[in-house]
Amino acid sequence: MPSSEWPPVVREWPDATVRPSTTVGPSTTLPAGEDRLAGFQRWFGERARVNHMDIGRVPLHGMTGWLGEPGTGNLCHTSGRFYSVEGLQVQTDGEWNPQWTQPVIVQPEMGVLGLLVKEVGGTLHCLMQAKVEPGNMGGLQLSPTVQATRSNFTGVHGGRAVKYVEYFTEAGHGRVVADSLQSEQGSWFLGKRNRNIIVQVFDEIPVEDDFRWLTLDEIGELLRWDNLVNMDSRTVLSCLPPALVARAREGRPSPDDDFGAAVRASFAGVGRPVLTSGEVLSRLTDARTRHRLVRRRVPLDRVRDDGWQVSEDEIARPDGKYFRIIGVEVQAGRREVASWAQPLLAPTGQGTITLAVRRLGDVLHALVRCRAQAGTLNVAELGPTVQHLPANYAGLPEAGRPPELEQLVPGKVLTRFDAVHSEEGGRFHHAVNRYRVVEAIDGELLDPPTDFMWVTLAQLADLLRHSNYLNVELRSLIACLHTL
Amino acid sequence: MPSSEWPPVVREWPDATVRPSTTVGPSTTLPAGEDRLAGFQRWFGERARVNHMDIGRVPLHGMTGWLGEPGTGNLCHTSGRFYSVEGLQVQTDGEWNPQWTQPVIVQPEMGVLGLLVKEVGGTLHCLMQAKVEPGNMGGLQLSPTVQATRSNFTGVHGGRAVKYVEYFTEAGHGRVVADSLQSEQGSWFLGKRNRNIIVQVFDEIPVEDDFRWLTLDEIGELLRWDNLVNMDSRTVLSCLPPALVARAREGRPSPDDDFGAAVRASFAGVGRPVLTSGEVLSRLTDARTRHRLVRRRVPLDRVRDDGWQVSEDEIARPDGKYFRIIGVEVQAGRREVASWAQPLLAPTGQGTITLAVRRLGDVLHALVRCRAQAGTLNVAELGPTVQHLPANYAGLPEAGRPPELEQLVPGKVLTRFDAVHSEEGGRFHHAVNRYRVVEAIDGELLDPPTDFMWVTLAQLADLLRHSNYLNVELRSLIACLHTL
Repeated sequence: MPSSEWPPVVREWPDATVRPSTTVGPSTTLPAGEDRLAGFQRWFGERARVNHMDIGRVPLHGMTGWLGEPGTGNLCHTSGRFYSVEGLQVQTDGEWNPQWTQPVIVQPEMGVLGLLVKEVGGTLHCLMQAKVEPGNMGGLQLSPTVQATRSNFTGVHGGRAVKYVEYFTEAGHGRVVADSLQSEQGSWFLGKRNRNIIVQVFDEIPVEDDFRWLTLDEIGELLRWDNLVNMDSRTVLSCLPPALVARAREGRPSPDDDFGAAVRASFAGVGRPVLTSGEVLSRLTDARTRHRLVRRRVPLDRVRDDGWQVSEDEIARPDGKYFRIIGVEVQAGRREVASWAQPLLAPTGQGTITLAVRRLGDVLHALVRCRAQAGTLNVAELGPTVQHLPANYAGLPEAGRPPELEQLVPGKVLTRFDAVHSEEGGRFHHAVNRYRVVEAIDGELLDPPTDFMWVTLAQLADLLRHSNYLNVELRSLIACLHTL
Repeated sequence: MPSSEWPPVVREWPDATVRPSTTVGPSTTLPAGEDRLAGFQRWFGERARVNHMDIGRVPLHGMTGWLGEPGTGNLCHTSGRFYSVEGLQVQTDGEWNPQWTQPVIVQPEMGVLGLLVKEVGGTLHCLMQAKVEPGNMGGLQLSPTVQATRSNFTGVHGGRAVKYVEYFTEAGHGRVVADSLQSEQGSWFLGKRNRNIIVQVFDEIPVEDDFRWLTLDEIGELLRWDNLVNMDSRTVLSCLPPALVARAREGRPSPDDDFGAAVRASFAGVGRPVLTSGEVLSRLTDARTRHRLVRRRVPLDRVRDDGWQVSEDEIARPDGKYFRIIGVEVQAGRREVASWAQPLLAPTGQGTITLAVRRLGDVLHALVRCRAQAGTLNVAELGPTVQHLPANYAGLPEAGRPPELEQLVPGKVLTRFDAVHSEEGGRFHHAVNRYRVVEAIDGELLDPPTDFMWVTLAQLADLLRHSNYLNVELRSLIACLHTL
């Protein structure tokens, strides 16, 4: 890609504690001699120039439209809508950290993450949107057709109408192929969930500025670039029914790719899983009952009692763990409203998210973990094999840290997917995770520890028809696997 | 049944505002000439004599082991465990009552409702327990094998071990045939759910005092008596996999019962449903997104601002709506602990719960409603066609009341099931609902209003494999339908 077009124009404040915006670029090399994405590059570069956004730091108590609630210190919008930053007191059954108080983002309203798909010439296309968010790494990213909070599309912003929203909020515009409520980051949000909905259209529809049809293969290639396909795209793509993905591949020569074939067979439900679907459900129910997760919303000011420093400027910890809460002021020419301020949650490091897969009885299985996080609606959801921000465990003895990949799948592994992706830039500032899929090739097959289990991709896809089974980090990896 | 053995011996305080304990008795006549339940009657009468419980009213602030929390008035146990009565502020999209504050029971810990089943001579048997609870109508009722809060079985009570609990909390005692988390009364509990688990055993197991194996047919007959099969039994029975119920009927002559055959065929998934399972899920997701349900726990004292009177003795409303919170003191010879006090929620009237069913395209369908209730974990669950306490709507205009049965299924209906059942006597005082299944025979098939849809029993049973799809009132009716 011509580097002059990258990154999109986002001017940010100088801040030594925030890593510089990385250039959007490939973490893997595109196939030599191919330039199927040249048209996309030109279009995306053009959208980046048009959708500039100026972002500046402001003190938490200097954000226009926001107030520190007297008596609690909670950061709330003056309209009472959108979201707030409050305190959360958590009690768990964890041996090493059984009780803590943390800031948390409370956003009780559900938004819509909607994707329009269409078969053109036997190939599945997705209507993607180039969208800039204030916390995005790299500025502009690819979002699904609609990414809107309830306040967005009901007009609380007093802003412009959300394009294409009627395809998802009204019946009769196409065939609904996926529709469920899915969670977002359980450590940062209290019980937040969004409607993930995919509608297949059959008629021609007008393509607005900032929107572009991309094939699933093209999205698959873009997913191998860092910080380009945003979290909202990844979660809604993960909900694609495997049968639809498979049909989109029919009639195209399948690449000579043994691992890709194993992924597709596992999604298709070929072969016998290690656990029946009833056993998978029962193990998750067991984890949800066994783990104790008692939450209470408390005044934000109370996080001071647990090692957080609350200042006019930010909420952060001297030990550098977890995250900071900061305020930003945004000037954007082409959004629903032209300028606004908002708090953002800025993690203090890059996270590691890894899914181990392995052929068991000739079927590719993934090692998932029942994971209880502070804000999880229903105690625990299935997460990837490894999901952590290493710095958070500093100072804890070995037994207090989550198992490392090497302990779970000893022996040789092959990296099948590896890219850095950003989490929701509308709430998080430069929240990036390294996402990997590794295939265990040999080595002893250990009995998985409590809360871990081997499941097929078809079993995961079946659970994705329902709400709150797979956490957002695992869903990101499912999206990557769908497009391998 | 010899009336001298009924009701079980429960001595209660005189209280003109609480209806007298009804005698446990049949709401439908047992088949003439049959006395298959004679052995059960003798056993149950004997258990009633042994399991006596003395119950007395005490002021809310005079309950041993409980305190009114300073500053909030919340009723909490001094151990910080079990449950508490707090205030809940609710904002909804409802036109007639968009915001209110109410007392609510907060019980974050999950309990276990466990049922042991066994095939004996080709017939499915369930291990039921005779158990008395302080709020039970009629005193003694039939509970599942295990009905225990986490505090019960982890020994917080300092009480006796819970019998058979290891069959559900440890692996290896049998085959888990159902295991999910299910909600309880959404208007009275905040997000409460219990693990509903059924384990099929193959070996002989010792039958303790108060326990008895009953066939599904026997339980079916007992379900037609008022206030005998408790809520916990009904909810866990609703989770029986239809295939297991069907196999339990194999080899027995099927009664010449056209409606029963239609019920069994609908559970078996015979025929084509009006909506695909994807459409059912999508409609529920739509309701969960469309309805606004923002909750905030507030001090119990704040319910005063919304028409509740908080006194030393009770929390109640002068308009007689909804429920009262009262305190009771219990002396029980044979429970985990011998005496205790606790608050109970006493509804102010009998509720009406009706499921309309109808043959559509030769398949029996049920008309269910996506229902948002104050404490529902995930905004809305599927509920029966009609579910209300008529007194609560006094003073509201017609448009503010839920549709009546006659408006939804005009024309002739046949009553297929009709009995009065109690809700959880460990938390509610004399909470009784009239449960009915009515079959619409003729009359125009109307387009169901928003939030209503016709689904087959197989579709409901499939959803019951997962958590939080069917509310507890609908699950009670599913249990009744399983045994028809």
